[in-house]
Amino acid sequence: MKDQSRAVVLLSGGLDSATTLAVARQQGFCCHTLSFDYGQRHYHELAASERISRILGAKEHHVVRLDMRDIGGSALTSDLAVPPGNSDGQAGTDIPVTYVPARNTIFLSVALAWAEARRAADIFIGVNAVDYSGYPDCRPEYLAAFEAMANLATKMSLQENIVVRINAPLLYLKKSEIIQKGMALGVDYSLTHSCYDPTPGGLACGRCDSCLLRQKGFADAGVPDPTLYAPDPE
Amino acid sequence: MKDQSRAVVLLSGGLDSATTLAVARQQGFCCHTLSFDYGQRHYHELAASERISRILGAKEHHVVRLDMRDIGGSALTSDLAVPPGNSDGQAGTDIPVTYVPARNTIFLSVALAWAEARRAADIFIGVNAVDYSGYPDCRPEYLAAFEAMANLATKMSLQENIVVRINAPLLYLKKSEIIQKGMALGVDYSLTHSCYDPTPGGLACGRCDSCLLRQKGFADAGVPDPTLYAPDPE
Repeated sequence: MKDQSRAVVLLSGGLDSATTLAVARQQGFCCHTLSFDYGQRHYHELAASERISRILGAKEHHVVRLDMRDIGGSALTSDLAVPPGNSDGQAGTDIPVTYVPARNTIFLSVALAWAEARRAADIFIGVNAVDYSGYPDCRPEYLAAFEAMANLATKMSLQENIVVRINAPLLYLKKSEIIQKGMALGVDYSLTHSCYDPTPGGLACGRCDSCLLRQKGFADAGVPDPTLYAPDPE
Repeated sequence: MKDQSRAVVLLSGGLDSATTLAVARQQGFCCHTLSFDYGQRHYHELAASERISRILGAKEHHVVRLDMRDIGGSALTSDLAVPPGNSDGQAGTDIPVTYVPARNTIFLSVALAWAEARRAADIFIGVNAVDYSGYPDCRPEYLAAFEAMANLATKMSLQENIVVRINAPLLYLKKSEIIQKGMALGVDYSLTHSCYDPTPGGLACGRCDSCLLRQKGFADAGVPDPTLYAPDPE
C-alpha cells in the first residue's frame, strides 16, 4: 500500500539541499535522506549532511558510495583545479569546470530506486535554475523529462499506479530567497557546507564560485552569514 | 570534437550483453564497456564481463562499484531466495523477485556520465522486451523516455549538439534469435554467465529462470549449449 507521506530527499550538505529538506518536512513528509560519496575531494559535505538530517528530523540518512573518480571531466572529482569565482558573485553563463557529467541524473536514478524500495512517490532535489543556469541538469525541462522517464521505469508505477513526482521547490528562487525561506523554517545554516575548496579542517575558502554565491545570498537576504571562513592568506 | 565511433556498452557478463557488444563492434564502434558491482551475490558475472570485453576487442572495461545491498526489495541484492523458474522456460507475466528497483535507470545514467566524459554519443544496452516483458525498464517506451531525458541532461547535448542514442539491438529478438545472431558474429557463449544462483565455483544451477530461458534458447536455436551446469542434486 502506498504511504502518501514518504519522500526521498537528496542531500549534499549545502545550503540549498538543507532548505529543500526543511521544505519537505514542513509539507509533512517522512523524509529518507540520501547523500553520495562519489569521490569528491572533501568529506565535510557528508558530515554536514548527517548533522542536517538529524536536526531537521529525517527518518533515516544513507550515504551511497559511487566512485566517479575514474570518469574524469570535472574539477569536483579529479585533479583539475577549482577556479576562483567571479568577484560579483554571479553565476557564469558557461558551464563551469565543476560540472560533473550526468550527476543529477545519477543522483535522481538512485533516489528513484530508493523511493521504490520504500514506496515513496516523492523525490526532492535542491536544484536551482537561477544561480546554476549553466548546468543542463538544473533546468525545468530536464526535470520534467526525468519525471516522465521515472514514471515508466518502475514496478510501483507500472503495477501500482504510483505517480513519481520530482519536487524541486527552489527551482525559481534566488539565493537570497532560498535563505529567507530556510530562515523562516528554522534552518541553522551554520551546519551547512557549500565551499568547493575548503581547508582540511573544513573552513570555507571564501573565494570559489559557491562561496561567493553564498556570501552574496546572505548579504542580499539581509541575514548575517554564519559560515566559518579560512583566514585570508594575504 | 565528436568522435562518431565511440560507444559505451553496458556489460553484465551474460548472453544478451555479450551479443550486444558483438553487435556494437560489428557496427564499427570503439567500445568502452561498463559493468557494475552492485553487491550482487556472485562475482562470476564480473569475471565473465572482463573476459568478454577483452575477447570481443573492447577498448577499455571498467567496473563501477555501487552498493545497492542496503536498499532491499530484490532477490539479486539481498537475502531473498532466488526462486526456481517455470519448467517451460517462459518468462512470467508478473514482475519477478529478481527485479532490482530502477536498475536499468541507474546503469544507463552512469553510462551517460561515462559517455559524456568520452564524447560518445552511443550507449548500448542488451535489454529485451520479449523474454523480460515483466520488467518495466526493458520496454521500448521506457528506453525512448530515457533517451529524451538524456538529451536534456548533459553539457555535450546542450553545448555541442551531440545527440545521445540509446541502442537496444536485442529489444525485439527471441532468445534463440539472439543466440543465432551472436553465433554469426563469433561470440563464444561458453564465456558468458547467465545463472542467478551459481555454485561457489561458478557452475550454473540449471534451474533458475535465467538458466531455463538460456537452455530453451539454445535448444530453439539448434545450437549446442556450452554452459557448464552443476550436477543434479538428486
